[in-house]
Amino acid sequence: MLPTLLALQNKLAQGDTTSVELTQAALARIAAPEGEGSLAFTKVYHAQALAAAQASDTLRAAGLARSPIDGLPISIKDLFNVAGETTLAGSVVLKDAAPATSNAVIVQRLIDAGAVIVGRTNMTEFAFSGLGLNPHYGTPSSPWDRETRRIPGGSSSGAGVSVADQMSVAAIGTDTGGSVRIPSAFCGLTGFKPTAHRVPAQGSLPLSTSLDSIGPLAASVECCAILDAILSGQPYTAPVAPALKHLRFAVPATLVMDDADEHVTAVFNQTLTTLKRLGVQIEEIAVPEFEQLAYINRSGGFTCSEAWALHQQWLTDNIEAYDPRVSSRMMRGKSMTAADYIELLQTRPEWIAAVEQRLEPFDALLMPTVPVIAPVISELEASDEAYFAANGLILRNPTLINFLDGCALSIPCHPAGTAPVGLMIAGTADQDKHILNVGLALEQALGNN
Amino acid sequence: MLPTLLALQNKLAQGDTTSVELTQAALARIAAPEGEGSLAFTKVYHAQALAAAQASDTLRAAGLARSPIDGLPISIKDLFNVAGETTLAGSVVLKDAAPATSNAVIVQRLIDAGAVIVGRTNMTEFAFSGLGLNPHYGTPSSPWDRETRRIPGGSSSGAGVSVADQMSVAAIGTDTGGSVRIPSAFCGLTGFKPTAHRVPAQGSLPLSTSLDSIGPLAASVECCAILDAILSGQPYTAPVAPALKHLRFAVPATLVMDDADEHVTAVFNQTLTTLKRLGVQIEEIAVPEFEQLAYINRSGGFTCSEAWALHQQWLTDNIEAYDPRVSSRMMRGKSMTAADYIELLQTRPEWIAAVEQRLEPFDALLMPTVPVIAPVISELEASDEAYFAANGLILRNPTLINFLDGCALSIPCHPAGTAPVGLMIAGTADQDKHILNVGLALEQALGNN
Repeated sequence: MLPTLLALQNKLAQGDTTSVELTQAALARIAAPEGEGSLAFTKVYHAQALAAAQASDTLRAAGLARSPIDGLPISIKDLFNVAGETTLAGSVVLKDAAPATSNAVIVQRLIDAGAVIVGRTNMTEFAFSGLGLNPHYGTPSSPWDRETRRIPGGSSSGAGVSVADQMSVAAIGTDTGGSVRIPSAFCGLTGFKPTAHRVPAQGSLPLSTSLDSIGPLAASVECCAILDAILSGQPYTAPVAPALKHLRFAVPATLVMDDADEHVTAVFNQTLTTLKRLGVQIEEIAVPEFEQLAYINRSGGFTCSEAWALHQQWLTDNIEAYDPRVSSRMMRGKSMTAADYIELLQTRPEWIAAVEQRLEPFDALLMPTVPVIAPVISELEASDEAYFAANGLILRNPTLINFLDGCALSIPCHPAGTAPVGLMIAGTADQDKHILNVGLALEQALGNN
Repeated sequence: MLPTLLALQNKLAQGDTTSVELTQAALARIAAPEGEGSLAFTKVYHAQALAAAQASDTLRAAGLARSPIDGLPISIKDLFNVAGETTLAGSVVLKDAAPATSNAVIVQRLIDAGAVIVGRTNMTEFAFSGLGLNPHYGTPSSPWDRETRRIPGGSSSGAGVSVADQMSVAAIGTDTGGSVRIPSAFCGLTGFKPTAHRVPAQGSLPLSTSLDSIGPLAASVECCAILDAILSGQPYTAPVAPALKHLRFAVPATLVMDDADEHVTAVFNQTLTTLKRLGVQIEEIAVPEFEQLAYINRSGGFTCSEAWALHQQWLTDNIEAYDPRVSSRMMRGKSMTAADYIELLQTRPEWIAAVEQRLEPFDALLMPTVPVIAPVISELEASDEAYFAANGLILRNPTLINFLDGCALSIPCHPAGTAPVGLMIAGTADQDKHILNVGLALEQALGNN
């Protein structure tokens, strides 16, 4: 069981540990030659982290702890700006780009809250895949079945492994089509994708400005709620679990279980059985709109068009520096017309309204975050076909919620010692507080924390 | 001098006239063979208008007048849906399209307020030009110098002529790049282009969903304020003129006087002189952003891309049914890419913020609505080159305010008996009430009403 933010805060408050101790332990795990640290991080802030930890201990000793994350080691995905550094976003193509002149808004908020930023985490190049493979910086392995080396999920791959291996107590990632929730699912963590507009994107390198959101990967729903308050700049109110018998969930009969593997199917069904036994109401509903999304995105969708719009000059000048599995999808955006894009902008609100109407009677949607367990890294590295098939299947469920402009938790729901499975608890736009409350109830019911 | 809405309401209230009388007079002017009615209207609601007038008189007699426009003849541009009718928007290509199943929101609001809708007014095909020429239904002439037959301005061409010739007491048009303000300027009327989002577009055929707005052409600023309240569904508060000595205006030194003709230059300068003499502060400022707009729109801008997105099927099936001067510009949108469009969406807010910053110390911008007097219809009909040159020049100033997402009045500022010249009083987004207040002050100062 990973330590929660509040458990560590209590230890700090009681003098059972110090920020310097926690930070040294995290840095030691990152540096351990037998560990995943060199694959999970693209940059480690050794000296700065220790300085921040020391300052935190000094302030705390004077009664000046700044927030529930003060003094705790936290990692940030490689696409957030840090003043004075070039943001690479897991690429090499940007290595000669100008350094950032200021911190990303969320980086500054973390620093202001007293976080000890231990390093920048590895990711899919430019965040454009749900798998987490990176040909430039290597691919860290999911904590489960490490001998086989399975993917950590992406694009926030290093983020997931950094928390699972206790190289940080929480990680900040981004989620355009599942990039916070997928590594949470594959690494046995709790991840939260907020409604996009709630967390400012200034200073983070976009993949798709229409779909990007910024959220935490951590040990529990409460940890996510704490970090979400800091990232969004809103006052923290602790989530409160509603009574299970008052909760009513929809499970889509459409799409989300297609091509699910045996383990995920069994774990998800067992989870629903457990929840029903505890009094939760669960109803299977058709959501035909979910089937329409592939057609709506047939020209490439927001991600290909907006990624191409940002990358067109870099791709034109230097395409060979890209991961070809990333650049080939960005190039789809080149052939998209203004009319294709306008159609997307006009169709999306209609699609959202139709789905919102179906979800009106329910507290949330439930589905497996990912319908399969983590594939093996080497098998995906070896085959484009396997890579693209896995990528499509693994992004499929989470991306529904990005297009919905909604919010979602992924919480672990698998029996200990088996392959991690994420339970996605998803709501419509601006239902973030409700989803965190409901997620806390399900977390307690499933007894994983 | 044209009668104002409130003057006519007073007459109705005092029993000096009736709605039936006013409506009969309007219908008679429309039907007069020597008049412009057959060119200004594409459809006249003879029987329905008289029925609405009769109902209005009945209600008024019972003390039940519904609004300041109750019983008054008002025209609507040919692009607003009326239940049961096919909306043609000045085209022939849509003649077999399905009839509308409900009224446009603004049509319903006019009806609910007791307006007597006398007919649908002629327009540039699909509203895509500021001149007002229509090869299918003919082109009504500006009220000034009618022997020569000069353009009424467009795209709301029939709207302007219907008010100038008292075939209606007010007209509702749309303004994507000046289509309310240009005919107001050329027909000696007062026109108001509101901030776009304030008046709902449901049920009006779009030209550019990013730039379209809906506004009135009428006899005075107060008339425009009354109609704007009804169109926007907001409570009416009468505009109040601030003291002239407290008003501070910016006159752009950039772009807006380029290629102005002698008459407009003289009238505009005289107007500024008059206002200064009355204590108004006027400062000339550089607005370099205005020069950038041509570059920002180099691929075709919102209008070409969004018009193509809407018209692509109709153009593909039946391009020969279009005005070639309209279809050729819509076809520019076909080659626009998603990246072009995304760049527009990203550039516009930055451009707006820069212009808003410059306008911060001022009550409004002043400029000639159009830098030239109305050209001769036959000369523009004869030459594509003359048509496109005039169209670019005549749209140039008004379109700045559409891109700004702002609001603007055009009020007459020419000496009686000379070619009409419009003074544009423009503000940033949601400054509508302030612009109407300021416009009232300038209207009174210039003594045109």
